[in-house]
Order: sequence, then C-alpha cells, then structure tokens
Amino acid sequence: MALTLGELAEGIGAELRGDPHARIHAVNTLEAAGEGELSFLTQGKYRKALQSTAATAVIVPEAEAEHCPVAALVVDNPHAAFARAATLLYPVERPAPGIHASAVVPDSCVLGERVHVGPHCTLGENVVLGDDCVIGPGSVIEKGVRIGAGGRLLANVTILADCRIGERVLIHPGAVIGSDGFGQADDNGRWLKIPQVGRVIIGDDVEIGANVCIDRGAIADTVIEDGVKLDNLVHIAHNVRIGADTVIAALSGIAGSTTLGRHCMLGGEVGIVGHITIADNVVLTGRADVRQSIREPGVYASGTPLEPVREWHRNQARFRQLDEMARQLKKLEKRLAEIEGKG
Amino acid sequence: MALTLGELAEGIGAELRGDPHARIHAVNTLEAAGEGELSFLTQGKYRKALQSTAATAVIVPEAEAEHCPVAALVVDNPHAAFARAATLLYPVERPAPGIHASAVVPDSCVLGERVHVGPHCTLGENVVLGDDCVIGPGSVIEKGVRIGAGGRLLANVTILADCRIGERVLIHPGAVIGSDGFGQADDNGRWLKIPQVGRVIIGDDVEIGANVCIDRGAIADTVIEDGVKLDNLVHIAHNVRIGADTVIAALSGIAGSTTLGRHCMLGGEVGIVGHITIADNVVLTGRADVRQSIREPGVYASGTPLEPVREWHRNQARFRQLDEMARQLKKLEKRLAEIEGKG
Amino acid sequence: MALTLGELAEGIGAELRGDPHARIHAVNTLEAAGEGELSFLTQGKYRKALQSTAATAVIVPEAEAEHCPVAALVVDNPHAAFARAATLLYPVERPAPGIHASAVVPDSCVLGERVHVGPHCTLGENVVLGDDCVIGPGSVIEKGVRIGAGGRLLANVTILADCRIGERVLIHPGAVIGSDGFGQADDNGRWLKIPQVGRVIIGDDVEIGANVCIDRGAIADTVIEDGVKLDNLVHIAHNVRIGADTVIAALSGIAGSTTLGRHCMLGGEVGIVGHITIADNVVLTGRADVRQSIREPGVYASGTPLEPVREWHRNQARFRQLDEMARQLKKLEKRLAEIEGKG
Repeated sequence: MALTLGELAEGIGAELRGDPHARIHAVNTLEAAGEGELSFLTQGKYRKALQSTAATAVIVPEAEAEHCPVAALVVDNPHAAFARAATLLYPVERPAPGIHASAVVPDSCVLGERVHVGPHCTLGENVVLGDDCVIGPGSVIEKGVRIGAGGRLLANVTILADCRIGERVLIHPGAVIGSDGFGQADDNGRWLKIPQVGRVIIGDDVEIGANVCIDRGAIADTVIEDGVKLDNLVHIAHNVRIGADTVIAALSGIAGSTTLGRHCMLGGEVGIVGHITIADNVVLTGRADVRQSIREPGVYASGTPLEPVREWHRNQARFRQLDEMARQLKKLEKRLAEIEGKG
Repeated sequence: MALTLGELAEGIGAELRGDPHARIHAVNTLEAAGEGELSFLTQGKYRKALQSTAATAVIVPEAEAEHCPVAALVVDNPHAAFARAATLLYPVERPAPGIHASAVVPDSCVLGERVHVGPHCTLGENVVLGDDCVIGPGSVIEKGVRIGAGGRLLANVTILADCRIGERVLIHPGAVIGSDGFGQADDNGRWLKIPQVGRVIIGDDVEIGANVCIDRGAIADTVIEDGVKLDNLVHIAHNVRIGADTVIAALSGIAGSTTLGRHCMLGGEVGIVGHITIADNVVLTGRADVRQSIREPGVYASGTPLEPVREWHRNQARFRQLDEMARQLKKLEKRLAEIEGKG
Repeated sequence: MALTLGELAEGIGAELRGDPHARIHAVNTLEAAGEGELSFLTQGKYRKALQSTAATAVIVPEAEAEHCPVAALVVDNPHAAFARAATLLYPVERPAPGIHASAVVPDSCVLGERVHVGPHCTLGENVVLGDDCVIGPGSVIEKGVRIGAGGRLLANVTILADCRIGERVLIHPGAVIGSDGFGQADDNGRWLKIPQVGRVIIGDDVEIGANVCIDRGAIADTVIEDGVKLDNLVHIAHNVRIGADTVIAALSGIAGSTTLGRHCMLGGEVGIVGHITIADNVVLTGRADVRQSIREPGVYASGTPLEPVREWHRNQARFRQLDEMARQLKKLEKRLAEIEGKG
C-alpha cells in the first residue's frame, strides 16, 4: 500500500521534515533503499549509511535528524515508529470471510463476524471463534476451544480441547497448543500416564512461533499472559506461567510448573528447570542454563567459550580437576604463608 | 465421570478410610480441591497442605494417613495410584468409529474393529490399523504402515512408509515418524543423499510428544522399545535404539546409531552423540552433553552455573586458561617443595 | 529394483571384480548382508566384517579389494559410490501425476509437466510448480510461491507467501518455510510486531528436515544456498544466509542476520548468535556455543565434560571462582619468586 509522507507522519506520530506529498510504497535498509522507500536508523553508529542513503525518507531520532540527507520522520523511538510505519505500509491480508466447503465445522460452533475458516480445517464441537478470526488451511481445533477476536492461525496449527486463546493472537504454522504435559508415574519401573486435565490459557496480543509446543496443565492450567512472544520451536511444559510481555527466542524450553516474570527476555536455546520462579525483567543470554530461581532482575549467562578443538580438549579435561585445583591452591597459599612467616 | 470412593478404592487397589458412597468427579491439588474432588500426596513435606485440604478424599501413603483430615485412600505408591484414579475419572474420549467422508483410505488398507479415521486424513496403500485405532484430523500415514490396536494419532501426525507402531501408542500432534535419516556422502565437497531404506519400529505403550521427529534407519531399523515416553520436540536420529521404559524430556536429541538402555531418564535439552552406548538406568540431568559411552548406571551432569553476566564474562574467559593454570599450579608446587626442602 | 553387478558397476563408475551377471536387489550392512545384497566399506578398520561378509558384492577402496571375499566394486570414494548405488536400487517412488480431487489449486497457479498435488493440499494464488514436483498430503503453499522442477514436499509442509524454492529440493514433513522472523520493537515495555516483508530464497539440491523452521527476512531475504542440508528441528532466523553445501545437524539454531560460509559442518544442538559471520569450511562439534564471528576454517568446540553428578557439583561450583583462582595463582607466583630471589 502506498502512503504519503504526510499520512505516515500522522500515522506514526512523527514530526515530518520534508515533502508531505512524497509517496512511500515500501520499507528497505538504509543501504538498499531507493525512490519511494522508507528506512530507519536507531543509533548514531549507522550515521554513515544514513548520510549516503537513497531512501525517500528515514525515521530518525532528533539527534540524527541533522545528518539525514532526505526527508526525516523525527521520533523518540525509531524502532517502534518503524514497526508502526511498516504495519501501515503492509497491512495484514485477511482472506475473505466464510467457511471453505472442505472445512468441518459442527453446528454447535459459534463463529463471530467476518470469520474465515480455510480449506481442510477441522473444528470440534462447541468451538467459539471471535470476530475476524482467520483459521488457516489444515488447522485442527478440538472441542470447546475459544479464540478471541482477531485471532490468526496461519496453517496446520493444532489446538487441543478446551484451551482458551485471547484476542489478536497470531499463531504460526505447525504450532501445537494443549498437548498433554509429560506426566508419568513410576509404577515399579513401568510408566503410568497421568491424565492431563488442565488447559492452556493464552492472553491477548500473544505471538506463537512455528512448531512451538505448549502443553496443557496437569491439574491447573498452563498460562501465557498478555503480550508474550514466543519464537519458533519453543517448548512450554505443563503448568508453566509466563508473565506479560516476556519474549522467548527459538529452541528454548521451560520445564513444568516454573513461573517466569513479566517482561523477561530469553535468548535462544535457553533451558529452565521445573518448579522455580524467575523474577520480572530478567534477561537470559542465549543457551543460559537455569537450575535455580532468580530473585533479582538483571542479565544472566552460563557456558564456556568456543575454542579450537585442540585447546578445548585440554581445557575441558581440566574442568574435571577444578575442585582439586582449588584445594591445591589453598594448600599452596598456606605453605607459602608459613615460609613467609619464618622468613 | 463421577465415581464413588468405594469404586475408586477398588479400581486403584487402595484401602479406603472413609465413606464408600461419597462421590468424586474430579482431581485437584491439595490447596485448590473442594467438594467432590480427589487429591494426593506423596511425601510428608506437603503435610501442611494435607492437613488443611478441603478435598473430599486424598490418596496417601500409610505414614501420612493419620494426618489426613478427610477420607483417605491408602496405598504404597500414591503417584501411581493417582495416575490410575485420574484415568478412571477422565476416560479417554474416543470419537465414534468410522471413516470421515473426506479421508482418503485406499481399498488395500486393512482396518480393525471400531477404527476411527478423522477428517482430511490420507492413508497410503496397504496400511493396517488395529482395533480401536483413532487417527486424528489431518494425519498422513504412508503406504505399508502398521499400527497396533488402540493406537491414537491426535492430529496432523505424519508416519512415513512401512513403519511399524505397536499397541496402545499415543502420538501427539505434529510428530513425524519415519523421515529420512541425515545420511549424506561427501562427493568432492558436494553432498550425495544416501537413500534411507530402514524403518522405524515402535513398541507397545509408547507415548510420543508433539512435533517429535524420529528418523527411519539408513539400512537397519530405528527402534523404540516398549513403554518409552518421549516429550515434545525430541529428535531421534537413524538407527538409534531406545531401551524399554526410557523417558526423554523435551528438546533432547540422540544422534545416529546410539543405543540407550532400559529405564533411563533424560532431562530436557540433553544431547547424545552418535555411535555410543548408554547403560540401563542412567539418569542424565537437563542439558547433559554426552560424548562417550556410559557403562555404569548413575546420575550424570555437565555444564557451568548461571551467573550474572559480568561475573560470567570473567570466569568463562579464564576457562581458556584452565590447562595453563593447572600447569602453573604444578610448577608452583614443585618450586615450593624445593624451598621447603632447603628450609 | 534389481540390477546386475555389471549395471551397478557402470552406474556408479566402479571397476567390477566379479560376475557381472550376479543380481543385486538390496543394500545391507557387512554383518547382515546375504544373497543378492550389496554392502560397502570405507576404512580398513572394518576389514574383519568384510572378510566374513555374506553379501553378494561389496563396494571397496582399492586398498581393501584384496581382502574382499566376494565380488568387489572398486572405487575411490566408497561412501559416495554407495550413495549412488543405493539411489539406483531404491529409486524415489513418485506418485502418479495429477491433482487430487480434494486439493485446492486456484486457476492462477502454473503447474509444470507431471506435477502431483496430493490430498488435502491448499495452494494460494499464482503458485508456480516446476516439472515433476510432488506436493504431499496436507501441504499448504501460500500465494506467489515458486518451486523449481523436481521439488518434493513430503507431507504437512507449509510454505508461506512468495518464497522461492530451487530445483530438486526435498522437504520433510512438518517443515515451515517463510514464517515471520522474530522482530519485535520495544514500545515502552510492550512489544510491537515489525512486519516481516522479506522472503525465504532456497537454492537447488537443498534438503530440509522434519519440523525445520526457516523464517522469512525482515526486509531483505533469508537465503539458503545450493546444496545445503538441514537435519530435523533446525531453526533458521530471519536474514540468515547459509553458504552452499553447508550441513547442519538437528536442533541447531542460527540467530538473525548471521552468515555461514560454504561447506561448513554443524553438529547437533549448535547455537549461533545473530549478526556474525562464519568462514567457509568451519566445523562446529555438537552443542558448540558460537557468540563471535569465526574467521578461520577449522574445528571448534565448547562445553564441559559429562561427570557423575556429585563430582560435577563440586567442579561447577568452582567455575564461579575461576577468575579468583587465576588471580591467586598469579599472586602466589609473585610471592614465590620473591622468596626465591631472596634465597
């Protein structure tokens, strides 16, 4: 969709320094942008790219506006403003309302206004879909599930019985919501399945990545609060609670009954054990290995550095001796102090 | 389903201390349970919750029975008894037998009694489904696959050609069984695909989590023995063998041709290299990094502790010097001994 | 398919030492092979198995030919020759051309010769499929996608709008290509979605494992070059570029805007942070933790050894003291040198 700079400035709440009639039809990087394209810069370290850009306009913070060789959209938070501008330029394409002839939708389902159910979808009894929901091809929604207004399941998504999804939730292909938690009781060496009778409750404005798995609760529910964003291939176990506006990058796993605070940021491949609590505003760098509750906000990390394999072999072998080395060090210190005392 | 305490006690083999006519319709936690609800306790450390519970009945070990303020179902193994009780209270809902009009089921397929094939399923030639199998919506079963009695594929499951699935196997949505192993031959820098001509053979009473991937064997078969339970997003490579009653938590990966023993327990995000053997009864804590065979049962772990990022930076930088530090320590020890000898 | 040894020798470019009329119908391991079966050996360390094999023929390097008790197919690279032989013996079974009655294929799609579109597939507008493409059951291909000749989507694959797939690309079940990158802008503590307007561009002869996720670019495209092979459950974030003939084992994740060189080999569960560059011919062992660019080819590793949990507890606790230990060591060295100076 093409917009004028004037329209964009108003849409994103920016001060425009340039021609309000210039037309923008796309976004691009500072380096690659050309006629009719909009770019953005967040920090002064990209100033060189700004100064040589061929974009028609750039979203900039006040401090960089003077270096902008083209029309400037001046804002406090260029990243957020760019998100808004791109959302205006690339509105979500919603398929036409209606139920595809191949979709299975029992009469007991309640569908809001303008709902789209795509080809080869299967809905169970008593599913409730809010206004403007889009259910992409091949999706399966079991009985009793409720999805709030504006929900979008892109394709081949599965939501199991009785789960609750808030408003404006975006679910990427292959995601599975409400699968059984991993509950097994040891019965003299054989495992007895413990029926998982809780649900998954997902708040508003949540985004769920491709092939993510969120297990239903064992007894109580698994809860994903408003504004949470999960990247691809994340695993959320039963009875986990994830605080509002927390973001979790790909391939991370949260074990059962753990509670994450609000506005936490987890890098990729993070692992968190079960039955612990993570405070609000905790940042975990990629691959962080979390085995105990974290009480204080802050940035946490774990792991050893990447090394050429030969050096790594030597150093990692010494890891086994680390406790012994620490003890030796103490002994040496003591012996040395004795000698010094004598000296 | 509602049951009387008398029926439950008989069903789970418990000694009932309370009114056999009291009715139970649900399970709940000790804290949240109310009228008509059943809870359980395994250890004395939850005694406080037991003493204040409003549940109608609690499954307890003998040692805790005297502290139970309500009806008690006394057993040796409360966790297993709870699994049995919940299974009675929440029987699996099986859809009505029959083949949905939209399902593709060639005439060459052999279907047992009471089989259900859901909407938008696709079966290949000569698929054999045992009695009471339930094939959920959108599942794809390629030619020659055999699934034993009582199998349940929940939704959007894919089983590729000629795999064998035992009885009472439960497969969660999105799981893929029988994809090609990662077999590539280096041909002067280009990779030639090696056809993967083995199968996946899965035993009885196996549970397979959402979006799990199990590769078919390169030549011989990949084997998952009876009673194995795999959590979500687990990867099992070609020619792996997993011993009976082994459980593997989410996001773990087992590389090719490795053999796991019986009744092993793997935490989440464990990684095991290929071509090794793990003994029976090995426990691997979450994120264990297994690069060599394990001959002895026991609990094994690896990894470094989570730290505030500044401390972590300092410590992990020293990891590169660990071998050097060990050598220095030895030298200091020697020099000190010399001085002491002189002294 | 059965072939004579003469046909096989010609097909794989081997020198045959044996009866050209002997028939081969299957491959097998040296140990398990019998009449009519072909095996191979790459290294002398398997010579014992070679000497006792009951295979009808074995692919061997020249150096082992004299130890082969049966017909020998002598080649320089037995692994690659075996891949070729198995490909001849097990030709890919392509379903009959045609569009299944249940598939949704808009008139605007352009389908090449002999294309197969299976049951319950959904294609968007203007999809272009090259000759001999096979689209397996339940696959979803959004509008504007182009797939080159010989493409195979096995089942339940999702390819989102406008992505480009080269020739002879094999995609395993559950893979998702073109899902949104994880782009979120912080707007005073709430996350604003940044529309992801790039595509995924995949070259020729690429193989993509089950349940792999490849995100579309934020602005520019995510690029997978020719000959790349991805194992199951791999995550490729937005704007990643993977160089030709690089192979990545299961459960690895590559964060946004990182560039991998050509012919790299990544073990399983590798993690690579965003915005870095990995040189050509880099080998990363399983679970490598890559946080900085790698400029030189070579083999790299990270991590600590697996230990019995008690030892591990002791050693990992010391990791927190590693920097302190290094400082103490330096001090001791200094104090000792002083004493020695006096002595």
